[in-house]
Amino acid sequence: MAAVDLVEIWRGDLLESVHKGHAVVCDGTGQVVEAWGDPDAIVYPRSSSKMLQALPLVESGAADARGLTPEHLALACASHQGAPMHTDRVAAWLSDLGLSEADLRCGAHMPSDRPTAEALVRAGERPCQIHNNCSGKHAGFLTLARHLGAGPEYVEIDHPVQQACHAAFEETAGEAAAGWGVDGCSAPNFAGTLAGLGRAMAAFASAGARGGARAGAMQRLTQAMIAHPELVAGERRACTDLMRACEGRAAIKTGAEGVFVAILPERSLGVALKIADGATRASEATIAALLVRLGVLDAGHPVAERLTAGAQRSWRGIETGRTHTLL
Amino acid sequence: MAAVDLVEIWRGDLLESVHKGHAVVCDGTGQVVEAWGDPDAIVYPRSSSKMLQALPLVESGAADARGLTPEHLALACASHQGAPMHTDRVAAWLSDLGLSEADLRCGAHMPSDRPTAEALVRAGERPCQIHNNCSGKHAGFLTLARHLGAGPEYVEIDHPVQQACHAAFEETAGEAAAGWGVDGCSAPNFAGTLAGLGRAMAAFASAGARGGARAGAMQRLTQAMIAHPELVAGERRACTDLMRACEGRAAIKTGAEGVFVAILPERSLGVALKIADGATRASEATIAALLVRLGVLDAGHPVAERLTAGAQRSWRGIETGRTHTLL
Repeated sequence: MAAVDLVEIWRGDLLESVHKGHAVVCDGTGQVVEAWGDPDAIVYPRSSSKMLQALPLVESGAADARGLTPEHLALACASHQGAPMHTDRVAAWLSDLGLSEADLRCGAHMPSDRPTAEALVRAGERPCQIHNNCSGKHAGFLTLARHLGAGPEYVEIDHPVQQACHAAFEETAGEAAAGWGVDGCSAPNFAGTLAGLGRAMAAFASAGARGGARAGAMQRLTQAMIAHPELVAGERRACTDLMRACEGRAAIKTGAEGVFVAILPERSLGVALKIADGATRASEATIAALLVRLGVLDAGHPVAERLTAGAQRSWRGIETGRTHTLL
Repeated sequence: MAAVDLVEIWRGDLLESVHKGHAVVCDGTGQVVEAWGDPDAIVYPRSSSKMLQALPLVESGAADARGLTPEHLALACASHQGAPMHTDRVAAWLSDLGLSEADLRCGAHMPSDRPTAEALVRAGERPCQIHNNCSGKHAGFLTLARHLGAGPEYVEIDHPVQQACHAAFEETAGEAAAGWGVDGCSAPNFAGTLAGLGRAMAAFASAGARGGARAGAMQRLTQAMIAHPELVAGERRACTDLMRACEGRAAIKTGAEGVFVAILPERSLGVALKIADGATRASEATIAALLVRLGVLDAGHPVAERLTAGAQRSWRGIETGRTHTLL
C-alpha cells in the first residue's frame, strides 16, 4: 500500500506542499486497530526506539544496581536539546560510573537549545559529546556495559549491549528485524515494520496488565518519561509540549526522518507513524492530530492548535499560510 | 498527474525516506520537451522567481538610471546568506539611494552564513533587515519604486512595483497567475504552473536570439548571476557551487519549499522543478541530476557527486547512508 496524504502546507489560498506517510494504532493484544497507508512499511524507528534500547538497562538489573532514578531513565529515552538541565545530569551520571565524556561514542554536535548554543559561541567553545541529544541513551549503554562486564566499544553491532537491544527490539515488536543501519549517534538502529513498532508501543501501554521483569521495566520507563517530559526533549520541543498537554495520558517520542510514537497507558494503545519524506514538521502535526483523535489531547489546547493548524509567518510577522492535518 | 519519486534517502541497505515531485524542461519556443510528474502542477516559485521580479528594474531603465552594476543585479536575484560580501554591498546600495535599512520591508532574520551569525552572537547584536536573504531583491524594489515616483510601501499588492512584477510574471510564463501569496520576505509571490515557470526560464535562456528591452534585461540578469555566483547565494551553498561547477553554462536559483530553476543559454533551455513535500535536500539533488542529464554539469564533478549521491555521516564521521537521485 502506498503512503497517503497526511499533512498539507497552505500559502494564501493555494496548497504549497504536501506530506505523505503511514500511521498505525495497535492495541494491547498486538492487533492493528486503525491504519493509514501501509502498516507493513519498513521503517527505521531512529530515536523513537530509545525506550526499546533502554529495556535491557532496566530488565538486567543494571539500573537498580547503579541506583538510577526516573530522571536517569527519562534521559535514557531522550533526544534532549543539550540545555544545562540535560547536560549537568548526564555529566553527573558519567561521573557516578567513574567515567567521563571521553567514554561516550555518540560524537559531538551543537546543542539545539539556543541559549546554550549561543553561550558556547560567546565563550569560543566547541560542544562536547555530552551535548549530543543521545548522550543520555549512551550513558545508559555504558551503565549496562559496566553491569555486564563488557568492553568499552558499546556501539559495535556484536557488543553485548547491542545484542541485548537487538533482542529487545525483536521480542517487543514481535518480528525479526528487517535489517539495521547506523544512527546519527553511531549506535545500531534496527529496522522493522511500522506495525511492529506500533505493537512495541502497545506492549509498553498495556504492561500494567502483565507481570514479569519486562513489563515492569516498560512501566518504569513510561512513567519516567511522563514524570519528566522536560528531560525527554526540552522547552518548546514537541515531545515535551505534547506530554505536558496530555497531562499524564501519554508518553511520546520523536525519531529523525519523520517518525513519532506514543504510548497511551490508559487506553492500552500504541501509536507509530512515519512521514515518507522524513519531514519533522509533518510528523509533529500528525502525532498531535492522532493524540486528539484518540482522546488524550484536547483539540483546543494551544499545543494541539500550534502543531496541527499553526500559522506560518513572514519575517515581519504577517501570516502567510497554515498547516492542515488530514487525520 | 501525480508527483513521481525523484530522490531516495538510504540508510544501510534499506530505503529510509523518499521525495516525490515534478520537473519540466522547456525549449526556447515555450514547449515542454521533457517532464516528470505533472507539468500543470500549480506552484509558488518563491525565490526562484527573483529574476522575474528583477525584470521591471532593468526594463524600466531604473537600473541604468541608478548606475547599477552586474553585482547589483546578481544581488537583486539572490537569496544570499548575509555574509559581509552581501550585506556591505546592499548597505552601500541603499546609501546610494539616500535610503537606509529602515526603508526595507523584508524583516530581519539571522544570516545563514555561520561565521557572520556567530559574530553577531559574540557581539550581542541582533540581525537587521540587510541580513535578510532577500535584501538585494528589496533594494531592487526600492530602486524601481524611486524611479517610478511610487510610495514607500513597495510590498503591497497594488503598489506599482508589484503590479510590474505581476505583469512580468504573467507575460514571461505565458499564463495568468493562479493566485498569489505572501512570501517569507513579505513580498507578493505569484503562483502558476510548473510548465509556466519552465517557459519563463526558457525565455531567459533564449533571449539572445530576440531583440527588445525585455530580452536585453533577461540577458543582463542571466549574465550577472553567472558572473557573480557567490553573490547569488554564498560559499558552500548549492546555487553558488552549481553555477561555478557549470562554468558559465547555467544560471541557477533555488526557491523555498523545494523549488529550483535553471537557465541554460547555450542550449536555449529552461528548467523548473518542485519537490512536493518542500524538501531542499531533494530539490538540490534533483537540479544537480538534471544539469548532469542536460550536459551542462560533469557527472564526476565533486559538487554533482555531493548533491546527487552524497553520504550522510554520523556525528563521529561514520557513513550511515546515501542520497540517490532517480533522474
